Amino acid sequence: MADEKNEGVLARWGEGLKAKSSSLKAKVVELLRKTKKLAKDDPRRIVHSFKVGLAITLVSLFYYFEPLYDGLGASAMWAVLTVVVVFEFSVGATLGRGLNRVLATSLAASLGFGAHFLADLAGDKAQPVILSLSVFFFATITTFIRFFPRIKARYDYGFLIFILTFCLVSVSGYRDDEILQVAYRRALTILLGTFIAILICLFICPVWAGDDLHSLVSNNIQLLANFLQGFGVQYSNESKEDELLEGCKSVLTSRQTEESLVNFARWEPRHGPFKFRHPWKQYQKIGSLTRQCAYRLESLNNYLVTETQTPLHIRDRLMKSCSKMSIESSNALEDIASDLRTMTQPTFPNPHIEKSKAAMKDLKAALKIGPGDGDIDLLEIVPIATVASLLIDTISCIEKIAESVGELGSLANFKCVEAGKSSDLELEQEHQKLPTSAIVNDHCHVVIVD
Amino acid sequence: MADEKNEGVLARWGEGLKAKSSSLKAKVVELLRKTKKLAKDDPRRIVHSFKVGLAITLVSLFYYFEPLYDGLGASAMWAVLTVVVVFEFSVGATLGRGLNRVLATSLAASLGFGAHFLADLAGDKAQPVILSLSVFFFATITTFIRFFPRIKARYDYGFLIFILTFCLVSVSGYRDDEILQVAYRRALTILLGTFIAILICLFICPVWAGDDLHSLVSNNIQLLANFLQGFGVQYSNESKEDELLEGCKSVLTSRQTEESLVNFARWEPRHGPFKFRHPWKQYQKIGSLTRQCAYRLESLNNYLVTETQTPLHIRDRLMKSCSKMSIESSNALEDIASDLRTMTQPTFPNPHIEKSKAAMKDLKAALKIGPGDGDIDLLEIVPIATVASLLIDTISCIEKIAESVGELGSLANFKCVEAGKSSDLELEQEHQKLPTSAIVNDHCHVVIVD
Repeated sequence: MADEKNEGVLARWGEGLKAKSSSLKAKVVELLRKTKKLAKDDPRRIVHSFKVGLAITLVSLFYYFEPLYDGLGASAMWAVLTVVVVFEFSVGATLGRGLNRVLATSLAASLGFGAHFLADLAGDKAQPVILSLSVFFFATITTFIRFFPRIKARYDYGFLIFILTFCLVSVSGYRDDEILQVAYRRALTILLGTFIAILICLFICPVWAGDDLHSLVSNNIQLLANFLQGFGVQYSNESKEDELLEGCKSVLTSRQTEESLVNFARWEPRHGPFKFRHPWKQYQKIGSLTRQCAYRLESLNNYLVTETQTPLHIRDRLMKSCSKMSIESSNALEDIASDLRTMTQPTFPNPHIEKSKAAMKDLKAALKIGPGDGDIDLLEIVPIATVASLLIDTISCIEKIAESVGELGSLANFKCVEAGKSSDLELEQEHQKLPTSAIVNDHCHVVIVD
Repeated sequence: MADEKNEGVLARWGEGLKAKSSSLKAKVVELLRKTKKLAKDDPRRIVHSFKVGLAITLVSLFYYFEPLYDGLGASAMWAVLTVVVVFEFSVGATLGRGLNRVLATSLAASLGFGAHFLADLAGDKAQPVILSLSVFFFATITTFIRFFPRIKARYDYGFLIFILTFCLVSVSGYRDDEILQVAYRRALTILLGTFIAILICLFICPVWAGDDLHSLVSNNIQLLANFLQGFGVQYSNESKEDELLEGCKSVLTSRQTEESLVNFARWEPRHGPFKFRHPWKQYQKIGSLTRQCAYRLESLNNYLVTETQTPLHIRDRLMKSCSKMSIESSNALEDIASDLRTMTQPTFPNPHIEKSKAAMKDLKAALKIGPGDGDIDLLEIVPIATVASLLIDTISCIEKIAESVGELGSLANFKCVEAGKSSDLELEQEHQKLPTSAIVNDHCHVVIVD
């Protein structure tokens, strides 16, 4: 009896264990799948992780080798700390943080010394009071300055480090009589750490924020082209592809990343086809026009979903020109995207824009309704009429995008068409595979709630 | 002669100086104006700056008082460092960073000790190799983990601190024989710093991310209501107010801030009318529906600008119902916004939504065109027909918003109408003055290119 009972308990226990282990197994498999996807979406993530590992291991060598350690002492810690906080995904972000850190540290350290010596002169009793007051004053002012939007965009980290260093130097000085030497060692290790981080970031498979910005903006235009292409075909077929719409929606959410990338790219030196003062801000202009266009396309999509009750004879009349317009617009966008990608000055006027304008004229003619058409419920025509009017809007949007890409071309001296599109496809091949979502995830402070 | 020449030079010099000083003066005035605006837009910024100043000054006291300093020694530095990096604008953000820091430090320190003792066992020669390998391994893995979007959203800072502490502890152990004591002191000061930061953040004029999220979401609905109100009036008057459109556009760009605020709010304890597990994520749902509605309203605006060439007799017929619909929709949105603000369960069905649906029926009837209307160019009718169809879409959007606010109400036990709207206006008064742009600027990593 007791044996049977025991066996029963054991069996149940075993089953529970089995169930738990199988759910654990499912979780592990899921985790592995996600990890693989993360790595596959952008393999540079793996390289980046190894680069960080390498940089930290390198600076930790300071501890192991006698001669290095003897020079720096416990300050070697600051090199590790610096590498960990300064090393970012792209060269621009790393340079920005590194420069912020070095400049802010130097400035704050000098001011901190100033405060320390002033307090020293004031005598033993007044010293803590003066130090406290100066710490309070600088911390308050600096914290407020960090609210200025422009400062926040490019120098937020610098101001944080400024408060930190100022407090550390001025206050430590109260206890540490060798403060000059300590500060010198710390500054040296911070400089060393920054240097190593920048070096590794810059010379081992560098990730340029500028490159990513360039491909993000041209990808986005390409996504709109794909959507319009699909729309032209689907609008006759009544089928709908979610993927194209997703592409269009991802364009709408890329603003923040674009802005970060512009800020990072401005720190970057000359690389590839981009000069030091490449007009990065122009990309933001193109990006915002692209998003305006994407809004219109998203609305278009609503009318694809709406069950159209348009009378057939009117519908057929309009359908052909609408289809033509969207396909020509799509070709125009494709041209613009490829010109941008290959850094070729776009041709004016774009032949596809001209063709879609011609289709627009046909459409406008087709929109005339005579008494011969009989009774008409305007609401039934609204969907297709709206599609027509949105497409007309889209063309003017595309013209603006073409113009702003042209502006970028003249600002950045894009090559002219004669130079040949065929020969310069390196850029085109490099980043094309990266989806917009991967670039967004890499560079932005992604805030996702599970 | 020489004198004259000198005088000439002096005069020019003086003029140059005057010009420079006047341009400097203009710049200073501009800076002061901006500073004043920044403080006026959200006075909590000033309070926050003083709070940071106070917290840092408090922890720096450790250096001045013998008994405190004797216990902590040079580790007191870590308290200052912790306060500077942990102290954020809202309670939620500070709690999140603080908890991340404390947990990551403890975990990493224990692992670091483990690595250190393992390496110790392996003998003098193997020790640096084992330490280096473990640092490389953990740094690489942790860096990769930070790419997972969910981790990045809530635990990014924790993982950063994890790498940092692990490296410091395992590597310092190689040199410092009193590592246990050093680590104990550091952990203590980090705990102390976090504690002081959280205390001051929590008890001196706390800024709750939850409150800001609550008012951001209800403000946004209110902005749409204002826009529609203005639209209903203007559509008859043909005038246009940029301010209303700006409000509508600011709704479109608030996604990132909403997401940050949800993440912060989830760290916050019970406060005001919000319980610990208040359904913060539901706000995100309401927010995204609000943005969908805002897209439609932005498109509406295009048709306000378009010079309408609609034949007058059709126009007049439609205008009245369009105006009625938009004003009733606006009232419905206003109801929803005020219900959300005062945390009152909204009534179903909303009377204004019903009224605007009635107006919709009138509109649909008015959209019928008979042969009596003569020749019609559809393109001329498109603008007003599109306005009509967008307004119809808007109503279904508003219904969805009302539904999701109702869901929030039942999840968070909003009070029923009978409890009286008049008595609970505290919440309504508190944050109403804060513009959306101020909240966005306060909480988001604003990335603005000058």
